[in-house]
Parts: sequence; C-alpha cells; structure tokens
Amino acid sequence: MSEFVRNQWYVAAYGREIGRELFSRTVCGESILFWRTEAGAVAAMSDRCVHRRFPLSQAPSHLAGDTVVCGYHGFTYDQGGACVAVPGQTRIPRTARLTSYPVTELDGFVWVFIGDRANAGSTRVPRAPWLDMPGWTAVSGMEPLAARYSLLVDNLLDLSHETYLHGGYIGTPEVAETPIVTRVDEEAGIVHVSRRMADAACPPFYAKSTGITGRITRWQDIEFTPPCLYLLHSRIAPVGVLPGADGADPDAFHVEVVYALTPETEHSTHDFWAVARDFALDDQGVSGFLEENNRTVVLQDVAALNVLERVIAAEPDGYQELSINIDTGGLAARRLIAKLR
Amino acid sequence: MSEFVRNQWYVAAYGREIGRELFSRTVCGESILFWRTEAGAVAAMSDRCVHRRFPLSQAPSHLAGDTVVCGYHGFTYDQGGACVAVPGQTRIPRTARLTSYPVTELDGFVWVFIGDRANAGSTRVPRAPWLDMPGWTAVSGMEPLAARYSLLVDNLLDLSHETYLHGGYIGTPEVAETPIVTRVDEEAGIVHVSRRMADAACPPFYAKSTGITGRITRWQDIEFTPPCLYLLHSRIAPVGVLPGADGADPDAFHVEVVYALTPETEHSTHDFWAVARDFALDDQGVSGFLEENNRTVVLQDVAALNVLERVIAAEPDGYQELSINIDTGGLAARRLIAKLR
Amino acid sequence: MSEFVRNQWYVAAYGREIGRELFSRTVCGESILFWRTEAGAVAAMSDRCVHRRFPLSQAPSHLAGDTVVCGYHGFTYDQGGACVAVPGQTRIPRTARLTSYPVTELDGFVWVFIGDRANAGSTRVPRAPWLDMPGWTAVSGMEPLAARYSLLVDNLLDLSHETYLHGGYIGTPEVAETPIVTRVDEEAGIVHVSRRMADAACPPFYAKSTGITGRITRWQDIEFTPPCLYLLHSRIAPVGVLPGADGADPDAFHVEVVYALTPETEHSTHDFWAVARDFALDDQGVSGFLEENNRTVVLQDVAALNVLERVIAAEPDGYQELSINIDTGGLAARRLIAKLR
Repeated sequence: MSEFVRNQWYVAAYGREIGRELFSRTVCGESILFWRTEAGAVAAMSDRCVHRRFPLSQAPSHLAGDTVVCGYHGFTYDQGGACVAVPGQTRIPRTARLTSYPVTELDGFVWVFIGDRANAGSTRVPRAPWLDMPGWTAVSGMEPLAARYSLLVDNLLDLSHETYLHGGYIGTPEVAETPIVTRVDEEAGIVHVSRRMADAACPPFYAKSTGITGRITRWQDIEFTPPCLYLLHSRIAPVGVLPGADGADPDAFHVEVVYALTPETEHSTHDFWAVARDFALDDQGVSGFLEENNRTVVLQDVAALNVLERVIAAEPDGYQELSINIDTGGLAARRLIAKLR
Repeated sequence: MSEFVRNQWYVAAYGREIGRELFSRTVCGESILFWRTEAGAVAAMSDRCVHRRFPLSQAPSHLAGDTVVCGYHGFTYDQGGACVAVPGQTRIPRTARLTSYPVTELDGFVWVFIGDRANAGSTRVPRAPWLDMPGWTAVSGMEPLAARYSLLVDNLLDLSHETYLHGGYIGTPEVAETPIVTRVDEEAGIVHVSRRMADAACPPFYAKSTGITGRITRWQDIEFTPPCLYLLHSRIAPVGVLPGADGADPDAFHVEVVYALTPETEHSTHDFWAVARDFALDDQGVSGFLEENNRTVVLQDVAALNVLERVIAAEPDGYQELSINIDTGGLAARRLIAKLR
Repeated sequence: MSEFVRNQWYVAAYGREIGRELFSRTVCGESILFWRTEAGAVAAMSDRCVHRRFPLSQAPSHLAGDTVVCGYHGFTYDQGGACVAVPGQTRIPRTARLTSYPVTELDGFVWVFIGDRANAGSTRVPRAPWLDMPGWTAVSGMEPLAARYSLLVDNLLDLSHETYLHGGYIGTPEVAETPIVTRVDEEAGIVHVSRRMADAACPPFYAKSTGITGRITRWQDIEFTPPCLYLLHSRIAPVGVLPGADGADPDAFHVEVVYALTPETEHSTHDFWAVARDFALDDQGVSGFLEENNRTVVLQDVAALNVLERVIAAEPDGYQELSINIDTGGLAARRLIAKLR
C-alpha cells in the first residue's frame, strides 16, 4: 500500500539539470525520463521502453533530434511519448506509447505532476519566487536522502533541532528554548509555525553573511504547503530593530530558505534546498559561504535521518513516539498530508 | 515456486575448469561440487556436507586421493558421494550420502543432469561439435550474469538488438531492418530463426577476422534447443556469393556462435559463449581478436541485462510488454520452455 | 517469532569497553546504550530517544555529567533512564522514560539482564573467575560473528572440528579420534562434555606456551551454562603425568578457555573469547602468543560460520542434518536452550 500523496505537483529537478542529455529521476516510485527539446521545452515520460522495459535513460539509449531512441532494440519516441519507429517493420502498434507527465518550470524548478493528468491543470503549483526575482540572489543544491519523506517533514517542521544537530552553524540555545506558535490554514492547506526570538545569539550562518556582530532579533516563520514545498521566512536584525508600522523593514536582513521535499521511493527522498537573500546581492564570498554552510547543515540532517531511517525500519510496527509542544507543527503537517492522501 | 526447467542437461563448466581443485558451481539453485578423479573422470555431488551443511568446496575442505574431506569435522566422501569416514567412530550411518549428479563431457563442456537421475539416460544432450572438431578452431569464455535466464533467452533470440546495443562490433543497420523467418520444430523441440541479408555492411567483427573489405551477404540462422543450448550459424560472403547447387560453399566464411544458458539462481545466469570458425585456423591474431571482441559484446549484453533485471524485479507483477514481429523467436522459445517446465 | 532466550543474563561488553563515551551494543535484538557514571558505575538503557527514536549513542548525542543529551532535539536522561529535560517547555511528560537494564560487572565482563527485570535478582549470573583471579593471567577479545548464535553453540560443543578447521593451531588427529563423554546436569542446567586424551601430539598453541616438547596427556572438559557462558577446562601435561590422589596437580599446565556467546540479532552474534592460564604469569611473550593464536582460531571459526550462516539462510525450511556421537554435547545444549526458551 503506497504512502505517496498522488495528484500533486512535485519538484523533480532544477531547470539547470535538464538539457540535451537523457536524465532520469524517480518521483513517488515512478521512473521518469526528462530531456529538453531543441526548442527548449522540458519533456517528461516514463523511463521504460514499452517493448521490454529497458530504461530509456540507459546508454546506449540516446536523443536523436526531438526523439528518444531505445538503446536495446531501437524503439523511438517523440516528445509526447508516442512511438514513432520500431525495428523490422513499418507498422507501429497503436498501444506503443509511453506515459507522459505534465511538467512546468517555475522559480528555477522543474515541477512534475504525479497522478491522473486530468487533475494537473486544476492543482496549485506552490511558489518560491525569491529564487528567481530581482532584488534577491540565491544558492541551491539537492542532497539524496536515504530516508522516508515523513522524516524530513518532521525534521523541517521542528526547528528546535537546530540547537543540537546544527550547533555552530545555524543553532543557538534560544531556538530550542523559545516556544512556537502553530497555525493551520485549513482552506489553503498550509501549516504556519512561528518562533520569534527578541534577543538571541547570532549563529555563524547569519553573523558571517550579514556582518552583524552583536545579539539579534531573529524570526523564523515557516510556511509549509504539503506535500512538497517548505518555506522558512527568516528575518535577522540587531536586537530591538523591528519593522515599521507600515511594514517597511529596511534595517533587517531577510533570508528565504526553501526546501522541496520530493519522495523518491517509500524509503528515500530528494532533498532540494535553496537559500535566497535580499542583501550582499553581488558578493560572491557571501554566496559561497551560504552555499557551503547550508549544504553542511543539510548533510547533518541527511546523516541523522539516514540513521533514523534504519532505526525505524527495524522497529516493530506501532512503535511509540512521545510528542511535546515543539511537535505541534510536525503533527499538523502529518494531518494535512494524511488528508491529501 | 521454482521457474527452473528440471530433468534436463545443463552446461556446468568447461572441461578445462575442472581439475584436482574442488570447484563449486550452482546450477538451477543446486550447489554442486565438481572435481576430477585421479583417473580423470569428472565427479559431481552436492556441495553440502550431510552433517552440518558445511560447503565441501570451502577451505580447509580438500581432496585426498579420490575422496573429499570436509573442512569442518572431517566427514569424508568418495567419488559417488558415499560417506567413507566420520570422526570419533568407525560406524558410518547408512544415510550418510551426498546427492550425486550424472555428468557427461562433450564438445569441451561438462554437462550435468538436473532432476530425477533416472531420466538422465533418456534425455538428449544437445551438441555443439564445432568446438572440438577438425577443420574448426574456437575461442570461448563464461560471463556471470546477474539477471534471470529468461532475459538472456529473449536477448539471444532477437538479434535486432545487435544494431543498437552492439553497433561498432557486430551490429549494422541491416540487422534491425531485415525481417526474420521463425520456424518451430515441435517434435525436436527446437526454435529456428533466420535472417538473411543479401547486401549488408560488414561489421568490424567479421571484417577484421575474414579480411572482407566490401559489403557482404550475411546469413544468421539461429537454432535454439531449450533450455540450454543456443547455436547461431553465421555465414559471411562477399555480396552475391552463394552456396552451390550441391550445397558446397567454399567461398564463404562460416562462424558458429555457441551460447550455453545455464540458470544459476532464479535471478542469475551462467552465460557461456564460444565462437568457432572454419577459416584462419592457425591465426592467433584472429583468435585473439574474436575472443576479445566477442567478450566485449557479451559484456554489453551483461551490462544491459543486469540493468533490466533490477528494473523488472522492481516492477509490479503482471507488468506489460509489447511484442512485435522481431519477437516471434523469443515468444516461441518461451512457449517451448513453458512446455518443458 | 523470536528465537532469543529471555530472562537471562548476557555478556554485553568487557568492563574496559565502557567509559565516559556513549557506547551502544545490541543484545538479543535490543539496542542498549552503555556508559559509566562519574562515580564509575555502568548505566544501561534503551538506545532510542523516546521522542522520535534517535539513537542516543549517535553523535552529536553526548554525556553531560551523569546525563545523556539526545543529539537531535536535546531530550536529556539521567542514569536510570528518566527524562530530566525537554526543549521549549519546563513540564516533562510522565511517560518520558527509557527502558533501563539491570547490569552487573563480574570477572571483567559487563553482564546485562534481558527480559522482565523483576526476574534479574533471582537469576544466576554464571562465573568465569579465572579472568580476574590471583595466580592466573588472561588475554581476551571479541569478534563479531555474522551468523546465528546456535551455530556458535554447535561449534563450541563439538571440538572434533579442531582437527580439521584448526589444524596447526589447536587441533591434532587425536581430538577427532577420541570419543567424548557427555553428561547433562538437569538441575543446574549445565552440559558437560569431556574428552581425555592419554597420549596425544601437542599442538603449537600449547607447545609454544608451555614449553613441552614431547607428547602430552590432554584433557578437554567443557562446561556450558546456556545460554551465554562456555568454559573449556583444559589440562596439559607430559604423557603419564596425572593429578595426585588428593587432587593436587602441580606438574600440569591449566588453561581456562572462556567464551561468552551473546546473540546480537537473529543472524549475528558477539563472540567474546578469553584464555586464562596458571603458568608463565608474567611472560608477555606467552600472553602475546596466546592472544594472537587464539584470535586466529576464533577468526577461523568466524569465517567458517559466516559461510555456514549464508548456506543455512538459503536452505529450505526443515533441511536435513545428520548427527553422530560427536554431536551429543551440541544436541544436549540445544535441548537445554529450548527448555529455557
């Protein structure tokens, strides 16, 4: 019985990953072939030849113009997945057609629709505009996670772990100490978790990138749109500096931390991460620092969750957890995900 | 439920592989110990000591004259599998006997009978005489395949894949383009698949070995005797050169490509291959070229089928295939194999 | 269905392994965290945080005084397993408590009780006093075994395998040739197996350590207390030298070979081994020789049993064994273990 939430858009790749080489990525257990047509559009179709299931991403399979040629027996498909040539005969069977997938490129991501394609048009694609917006600059990456998607949801919705798992990077004692406010927008299907620290130590991640040397006012406002897109609106300012009555906030630093959580299999996840900022836009040193530092933080999560996956896979069914206040965001996310499923 | 075809002879090894060292090979899921007696006969028996299942092929197990001594507690067996000594007592239990296997050496192969040994004598051992016949010379090898036997049957019965998977070695466009003729000899239990190309490019495999520089007449006549022996009678000649009315064919080059397909487990296969020719008999350069080139081709198949095995193992039961004209030979082979089973 | 014998003491570690670093070992399928308090006592508790099952032995989890701090969200536990701090709130849930384990240190071993802790006090901890006794000196180690516990029981209860698997180390022909006497003390739950060789070759293990150059009288008296402790009382003396009528035995060499057999999982085992002697007490050369030699012997067993585990795991259920006189000790041990279970 699949745990995947279907009839949803998922991030399959960064746009920069898809070009004129055949590219395969598994999303929600489905092996999908991606490539870019000569006109620049992203094509997405099943990565299994209809003949004998050979992966179309596997050499010597190759692109020939806007067709894909299977490397085993030469079955050839167009960008919509229709078979246009087979070996040894001119008649092409009517049923020779690959499943194709709705695709859209937004905010630097390639989104793919998993489920009944009739539902694709009416299903919202969540946005992360800061990744590709004037006045902002971003770094990003993707780390493969050998753990189930739900462990990453738990991880990101409860940032008190920053204090322990990411001490010396993004965590300080105040994160774990400060209570959270959780709010669920049932209609929009969004979980909001806020932690606002009025007077906190500034972790290296923000000290080195902003240049702030003293203590800070630090806001963490999470906005999670299940199943795939997680935004952390992060505001850092010297202690006492607050937005104006009109909402203007010129003296603070704003960072948008974006995660796309895409199930690969029941026990593995694509962990896309990006960090956008509205300061030091052209400073390559800051970009390099944030990219390296955030990747380190993500890899700390990956290491911990990979361990946790092995632990949980070995637990008997119905193993016990104990939840406390910090878990209200994660529990709300689980509830919304179960509802989507 | 086993998929193996039992009550059949299978190639277990080349004769050259069996000597005075204990040798183990698994055939149809049965671990079999092979060794050669002092008189030179091949002995074959279960590779599991009757006492505590220790593998008799595992050091410090060893041969002592014409007996095998278990390396764990010293149980000792003769060439028929009867236990002749146990530790700590002189009485040998009546039931202390290893299953022994009928064996025959033919055409350089060691054949072993899997099934009820009462049927061994009445079951045909298929022949590949060119491997050990005056006027012919042969090269051979074996590659382990981490894929189920049926994938290798499919592969060999449909040579249109030469064009795509083995381009630059044995494939040219004409192989995939030329229709096949399939014929099943129900009585003999043999599948014949013929592809006769009147005017084709000469692939490097044949150009370099025969010295032909122009286009060729190329005949591929497959003769598959399920479950184990596959012969490809290959005839290469300059375009327009055909056999005489009397069948004499002095101006053509003949190559006999032999495969023995032996299931190891449900998901792995021993892929024995040999290439015999009736020309350049003493030319070591040609022998070396054909050995290297055919091994490369076999390893291209191994790589592709190992991928396919992982793909198919992950498919839900009842996954779809789409068959076309090129598959008539493979489908006929599947039918004969199902009948044998 | 678990095969483990519960409500028993098992050796989890040597005392020297447990200090001020968090240490994890799995015993009978239970992951247990061990550490030593500032006062020097061994604490043992479940190695899974009650919150989200993160292993407490996994960095960045760490000791803080006499508490353990989980590296994921900071849940903190005292030496009895009670939770004493959680992040973001002061109230600690009543049920926040790790399972703790009864522990005792004896003879250099850390014993842990697996089962219902109410039974710990009334359950015997078997002894191996020579490991920590004046007049004796010992070497010891532990090798991980990728094989089920029962294979190690079989191995140790039938020493006829010394002749074959350990020839050149501890085996000589007389071991396999000499019949054994098996006696079961049903009340105490102990299996005794004796093999007394009046005139035997002296294997290198004893020749080099004792300095005896000729043939020996060699006694092997096994005393196995299921499930965990195996003692081999070994007596070596020049041929004809026997204990006096009063039991005094000044002209013999005595070696106590101790094994603690601790199931890790259903298919792996901790193989603790020690060799104590009453001679050459201060001779580091003899200590080094015995340590190296016995470790080699243990690794010969490990290699053989790891092979056997893979063989047996692949056998169909109800596979056949054939037992003879040498197996009476092993069969008695199996019976006592089944009774305990």
